[in-house]
Amino acid sequence: MLDGWITLDRAAGDLEGQIYRAMRDEILAGRLSPGLRLPATRALAQTMGIARSTLVKAFERLRAEGYVEGVQGSGTRVAALPAPPLALEDVPPRPLPLPPPSIPAYGAFESGVPDLAAFPHAIWARCLGARARSLRVHDLGYGAAEGLSALREAILTHVMAARGVVATPDQVIILPSTGAAIDLLAHVTLRPGDTAWIEEPGYPTAQQVLRRCGAELVPMPCDAEGLNPRAATGPAPRLIYVTPSHQYPTGVTMSLSRRLALLEAAASAGALILEDDYDSEFQYSGRPIACLQGIDRRGSVAYLGTFSKTLAPGIRVAYAILPHRLLAEARAVQKLRGATVSIHVQAALADFLQDGHFRAHIRRMSAVYGERMEVALAAVRHHCADTLIVPTQRGGLQFAALFRNGAADDVAVATALQAAGVAAKPLSAFYLGTPQPGLLLGIAMATDADAAATVIQRICARSTSAAAAG
Amino acid sequence: MLDGWITLDRAAGDLEGQIYRAMRDEILAGRLSPGLRLPATRALAQTMGIARSTLVKAFERLRAEGYVEGVQGSGTRVAALPAPPLALEDVPPRPLPLPPPSIPAYGAFESGVPDLAAFPHAIWARCLGARARSLRVHDLGYGAAEGLSALREAILTHVMAARGVVATPDQVIILPSTGAAIDLLAHVTLRPGDTAWIEEPGYPTAQQVLRRCGAELVPMPCDAEGLNPRAATGPAPRLIYVTPSHQYPTGVTMSLSRRLALLEAAASAGALILEDDYDSEFQYSGRPIACLQGIDRRGSVAYLGTFSKTLAPGIRVAYAILPHRLLAEARAVQKLRGATVSIHVQAALADFLQDGHFRAHIRRMSAVYGERMEVALAAVRHHCADTLIVPTQRGGLQFAALFRNGAADDVAVATALQAAGVAAKPLSAFYLGTPQPGLLLGIAMATDADAAATVIQRICARSTSAAAAG
Repeated sequence: MLDGWITLDRAAGDLEGQIYRAMRDEILAGRLSPGLRLPATRALAQTMGIARSTLVKAFERLRAEGYVEGVQGSGTRVAALPAPPLALEDVPPRPLPLPPPSIPAYGAFESGVPDLAAFPHAIWARCLGARARSLRVHDLGYGAAEGLSALREAILTHVMAARGVVATPDQVIILPSTGAAIDLLAHVTLRPGDTAWIEEPGYPTAQQVLRRCGAELVPMPCDAEGLNPRAATGPAPRLIYVTPSHQYPTGVTMSLSRRLALLEAAASAGALILEDDYDSEFQYSGRPIACLQGIDRRGSVAYLGTFSKTLAPGIRVAYAILPHRLLAEARAVQKLRGATVSIHVQAALADFLQDGHFRAHIRRMSAVYGERMEVALAAVRHHCADTLIVPTQRGGLQFAALFRNGAADDVAVATALQAAGVAAKPLSAFYLGTPQPGLLLGIAMATDADAAATVIQRICARSTSAAAAG
Repeated sequence: MLDGWITLDRAAGDLEGQIYRAMRDEILAGRLSPGLRLPATRALAQTMGIARSTLVKAFERLRAEGYVEGVQGSGTRVAALPAPPLALEDVPPRPLPLPPPSIPAYGAFESGVPDLAAFPHAIWARCLGARARSLRVHDLGYGAAEGLSALREAILTHVMAARGVVATPDQVIILPSTGAAIDLLAHVTLRPGDTAWIEEPGYPTAQQVLRRCGAELVPMPCDAEGLNPRAATGPAPRLIYVTPSHQYPTGVTMSLSRRLALLEAAASAGALILEDDYDSEFQYSGRPIACLQGIDRRGSVAYLGTFSKTLAPGIRVAYAILPHRLLAEARAVQKLRGATVSIHVQAALADFLQDGHFRAHIRRMSAVYGERMEVALAAVRHHCADTLIVPTQRGGLQFAALFRNGAADDVAVATALQAAGVAAKPLSAFYLGTPQPGLLLGIAMATDADAAATVIQRICARSTSAAAAG
C-alpha cells in the first residue's frame, strides 16, 4: 500500500524524514482516510527495501505528533483530524521580485553614504574581537533597553564637545538607525491625526515613518534661513522634524532667529522637535554651528545622531538624546519593541570612541571630504554653469544643485545619469508638494568629480532644452 | 563689563568655550540687551588676563551663530533675538529613578535567559574578528533591510532541519529581537480596533506590543492541549499570537487537532498566526514536535525564532519567516523603521551557523539543560509536593508550578523568594484575566535546585497557610 506512493530518494539520505513527511502530507491532504490501518512495519520495510527501524522511527514521529494512533503491534491507524483537507494556497503566483543585487554601484556623486573604503577595518576588528572575548556573563543578558552605559557616556562626551549638546548620560538611548529613533519618538509623541511639521523639501524616511504613525504632515517650506515657523497656518503641531545644521537635502543652515522662533513655537504648542543632526561632524569652513538642543531650555528638543555617516551604515548604530519629560515612556516603549543593538557592537564602539579612534577618524575624513567637496563644487559650478545653480556649502557629505530651467524633469535626468554611471538623486523626490527640480550630489566618494560634472552638463543641457522646446 | 560676570575656571581649560557659552547664555536669557556694544577685545583681554586671540575666537563663534553682529573694529553688538528669554524648564523635578543595577542576580530558577556562562566566547570572538577584517566596501552600506542573505540562508537551513519549517530564504527577515518581530508584523497586519487573540496566560511583551498597536486583545484560555480556537466568541481575529511548541508560560504542547483547528480558524478569518517558537531547540524526551508553520498551506503563519535562548540575549538577533503574501509590505516597513542588525554580527553569525558551531552548541547545551530540567523537576516535586503541582515537561528552559491552594498570593511568594536568593516569576503576571497562581521556574542556571526547592517549600507553605487562614 504505502510503497506505491512514497517515492524515496535514496541518494538524498534521511529516509526516516522522507517517509514521515510524505505520510504526514498524505494524511493532511485527506488521501489516507481516518481509521485506515497501516501495514505491519516488518512486512512494509521488506517491500520498500529499507531497515525496519527506519520505518518504526518514522511511525513514531507521526504518532508523537498525532497523525496516527494506536499501540504498535495491535495496529496503527490514521487519526481522525478535525480540519478539512488543506489546499496549497500560499505559493506566490509568480516569483517575487528579488531586491536589487546587494552590490550597489557606488560611484561619483552617490549620496547618503560615507567613503566606505576608508572604514577603519583593522582597528574596528581589534575592538570587536577584544570585546567578544572579554564580555562577562552578565553583559550577555537582556541588558538595559536604552543601551550600554559606557557607550551612552562616550557618545555624550563626543556630542557635547563637537555639537554643543547639553545633557546627562541617562538621556541617551542607543538604537540601530535614525529611522528607528524617529519611529520610537513618533510613537511616544503622536496620536493618530496629530499634526507634524516637516521640512519641505525633506527627508523621505521621516515623511513616511511619521505618516505610518498616523501623523497629518504639514510640509513647511525652507528658504535660505531654513524652516520658517511663522509661516505656519492650521492646527498646532505635536512633533516637528528638522535638520537645522545642514538641511536635508538643500544644505541650508537654519538661522539663529529661526531657531529661537522654532523653540518658541514648539514650547507654546507643547510639541517635540526632532533635531536630526545626521552629518554635522563634517564642517569645512568656519566652526560648526552648535545644535538646537543645546539652547533649548524647556525640554522641547530630542537630538538624533548616527554613525552611518561618520563610520558606515552597516555598523547600524544611532542615538537619540531625549528631554527628561519623555524618558520614562520612551524607555518603556524601547524595551517592548526591542530595536536594540548587539552588546558586542555597543561595547566595541564605546572603546573605539573612548580610545580616541573616532575623533582621529573624523579629523582624517574631514580633510578628505573637505577637499572632495571643494573640487566637486568647483567642477559642477564650472561645467554646469548654464544649467545648474549651486548654493554655498559649509559642510556635510552632499549638496543640492538647482535647475536653472524650473520646468526640467529631474527624475528623467537622474535616470539618464545613473545609466551613464553618475549617481544623483532627483530633488523632486524630497517634496510632498510642488517640487523645485534639481539634483542631490554626494561628495563622499566623488573621486573624479570633473569627469562626472561634464556628464551632468551634457545630460542636463539635453533635458532642459527638451523641456524648453516642449 | 564682561569680566564681572564671566567666571573663568582656568583649571578646566578651553577658555574660549567658557567665554562663548557664558556670553551665549547671558544673551539668550536677555541679560545682555540687543544693541549693547561689546568692549574692544584688546582692552577686555587685558582686564580678564587672557590672550586676545582667545577672546577673538569666542566672539567669532558668537558672530557665526548669530548672537552678536557687526564687523570687528567698527564695534560688535548684541543681536536682536526674536524670542523672549527662555526659562530653564526641563530640569527633572527629582532625580529620575535609575534602572536597576546592570548586574541582575541570575540565580537558581531565573527564567528567560540561557546559561550565559556557557556562551562560546572564543569561537564567537574568532567569527566576529574575522568578519570585521574581511567585510568588503559594499557590505558596509545600508544593505538589504531584510538582512544578510548568507545569514537568512543559514537560519533557514537550521529551522528546516530542526523545526520542520517549510520556506525559501526570501521569506526570512532578520531583526534584533522577538519584540521587534512582533511589532513589525502587528504593524503590517493590524488596524486600530482589530481583534487579536492571545494565549491566556501568555507572553507579557506580546500582550503589550499588540495593545500599543491598537489591537483589542482577546485572551484565549489554554488547557492541556493549548489554546482552543473553538472557544472563541466575538469578532473574528486579524492576528493570533501563539507558542504551540512549548506554551509560554505553562509549557503545554498544542495538540495536532488544535493546530489544525487553529489553521482553519485563521484561514477562514483571514488572520495571521504569529508562531513564537522561542526555545524549541531544547527537547529532552522524544523528538521535537514540528512547528505549525510547516503544515500551513495557506500563508496563515509567520514563524518567529530567536538566538536569545540558544546563544545569549545580548547578541540581539531574532528572525521572522513570513508567508509570501506579507513579504513586500513587511520589507518596506522594516526598511523604513530600521530595526536592523549590525552587518558584522550578521556575517559572524552566518559563519557560526554554517561552520557547525551552532549545532554543536545546541547539542552540548541540550545535554546540560536536560539534566538540569530533570533534577529541578525532581527537586520541586519532592520538596514542594504539599504546595505545588508540576505538569509534565518535555523540553524548554523553564516550567510552571501551580499552587495547590488557589488563593495563595504568588506575587508575595515571588518577592519573598527573590529576597531569599531564588528567582521565580509569579504566574499571575502572565494573565490578562483571572489568574491561576503559581511560579515560573527557569532551569538554565539552576545548578542547586535541591536547595532552592527547599526554600520554595518553606515560603510557599507559609504563604498558602496564611491564605487559608485569611
